[in-house]
Amino acid sequence: MSVIKAALLGFGTVGEGVYTAIHSHQQQLNELLGVRVEIVAVLIRDKNKKRDIESNILVTTDFEEILNIRDLDVVFEAIVGEEPGYTYLKQAIDKGIHVITANKVMFAKYGQELIHKAKQRNVKLAFEATTAGGVPIIRTIQRLLQVNRITKVQGILNGTSNFILTKMRENKLSFEAALHLAQQKGYAEADPTNDISGKDAFCKLMILSQLVFGEQPCWSEVKIEGITSISQQQIEEKEHQGQRYKHIAEIYKEGKLIKASVKPIIVDSNHPLYWIEGVENAIALEASLVGNITLQGPGAGKMPTASAMIEDFAEIVQHQQLQEKIPALQM
Amino acid sequence: MSVIKAALLGFGTVGEGVYTAIHSHQQQLNELLGVRVEIVAVLIRDKNKKRDIESNILVTTDFEEILNIRDLDVVFEAIVGEEPGYTYLKQAIDKGIHVITANKVMFAKYGQELIHKAKQRNVKLAFEATTAGGVPIIRTIQRLLQVNRITKVQGILNGTSNFILTKMRENKLSFEAALHLAQQKGYAEADPTNDISGKDAFCKLMILSQLVFGEQPCWSEVKIEGITSISQQQIEEKEHQGQRYKHIAEIYKEGKLIKASVKPIIVDSNHPLYWIEGVENAIALEASLVGNITLQGPGAGKMPTASAMIEDFAEIVQHQQLQEKIPALQM
Repeated sequence: MSVIKAALLGFGTVGEGVYTAIHSHQQQLNELLGVRVEIVAVLIRDKNKKRDIESNILVTTDFEEILNIRDLDVVFEAIVGEEPGYTYLKQAIDKGIHVITANKVMFAKYGQELIHKAKQRNVKLAFEATTAGGVPIIRTIQRLLQVNRITKVQGILNGTSNFILTKMRENKLSFEAALHLAQQKGYAEADPTNDISGKDAFCKLMILSQLVFGEQPCWSEVKIEGITSISQQQIEEKEHQGQRYKHIAEIYKEGKLIKASVKPIIVDSNHPLYWIEGVENAIALEASLVGNITLQGPGAGKMPTASAMIEDFAEIVQHQQLQEKIPALQM
Repeated sequence: MSVIKAALLGFGTVGEGVYTAIHSHQQQLNELLGVRVEIVAVLIRDKNKKRDIESNILVTTDFEEILNIRDLDVVFEAIVGEEPGYTYLKQAIDKGIHVITANKVMFAKYGQELIHKAKQRNVKLAFEATTAGGVPIIRTIQRLLQVNRITKVQGILNGTSNFILTKMRENKLSFEAALHLAQQKGYAEADPTNDISGKDAFCKLMILSQLVFGEQPCWSEVKIEGITSISQQQIEEKEHQGQRYKHIAEIYKEGKLIKASVKPIIVDSNHPLYWIEGVENAIALEASLVGNITLQGPGAGKMPTASAMIEDFAEIVQHQQLQEKIPALQM
């Protein structure tokens, strides 16, 4: 059985999730792809931290060492922030290594350039995990709605914000108390700025815009408003009218112009995102043939995000096999 | 530009939808696939009925005439019932013609045999439109969740039943009045038996079972209960307790045994299908890595069902092109 060699860049929550998933689903991968998947290296930042990684795997802080691995097929990138992720992925692509990324901040900014580079180099670049965690929105748009013209996307793309708004309504909590609860439950970082300011949702929206419309709006012209200005009292008032505040990232086209915004929107029960509660993410699409469809699921978390990366991985391997005329892809 | 020749089997609501969609999305198809799609023939039942079909297209009641078309690439089957759909598709596959079907009754029974036949003959057989209309549940399972082990599927798979239950609750209608409203709106047939008895949902559930578990349970052992036994009073009582009746088709495995049922289930607001209202369909999946995801959208209707068939079509053409090493499939 042939072997696929993979390296993990980053061993935080998501990187560890990929590590676990590849081990727990090795049989599934064998049967599906007819290959054995081997994690040969893990890139880490802190050499002193104790990690549960098998001893035959290269654990290094030096990306060069990973680039120099012979016949490395694919890297799973789960680093946070623009750098060093961007530089590493450029280098990997240059070396002909397939790339699977979960790094939304980096990808919102450099995605298009990396996609272009990957095409030139004939390697695959997959990014399902950058947007809405385990909800397979990227590949639904890429693969399942290719003929449909998508005219509008609305999403709850930040689980932390949605959790806070849900708890403010359900439990009549103040913003601060709801945020504290989110932190206690591990849904919000110690510094929750990116989540509650709308910046996190904005990155994901830009990735969706690139995918759906082939371009992004000018970033400085996109209204980004977080959830901090909403009071519990406002939420309660709206609830009495059968309405809810939802923090919605939205894109659509007006003529040739992409209109994008990230902000709280008051919706009633006819709206597909009214019902999305807690840390869930959901995306409602408007498309020319199918009409409206909504996808809902876990927007973050160790295994859902790992799931997105592993499924990307399976597709890449299948695509390679088909190109090499190995008859492993069957309908 | 090369031409793909297609025939439509059936020109009812769905067949006409495919016809319309291919015309309205010809440019999209050109750009995506680099081909021109030509409907060369339409199989009809009643020669005397007036139809809006271009005069250069063969319109016939004789399937032999369609089989004899030179270089026919694909048939879209939108006939109702086991026969003659089954026989036609067998013959088409034997002739090396790709098949896209929307025929759930036929496919629930003969799907596995046809899939097997298609593999042997190296043609593609696609059936997204058989289950949940425009909701891309089949290809989500086939393509996007290949590594995940799906452990449970719950679906609202019949829009008519869901519409009736919704209206009985929302508008405090009797079953009969809600059914009458569904008929007035064109959501229910003159004879609604298959919808309200659960038989329609059962067919779709069997298709999902085959897809997810590779087999179907013994049909006679599946409990199938429709919605006719539920009274408006029962619905109202449950509503006061924050609960709803939903007509849910469900499969999961208990050891090696597939457990399947189609029946009204009382759910509360924590259940992902509690929120699915009106004619919408939705499917909630439980999977080993991603956890729970839910897909929601139009379960029937002219353009949503046509959408499913056209998207199947695009995938088939792309797959062929990749096999023929035409570099049209890009990530």
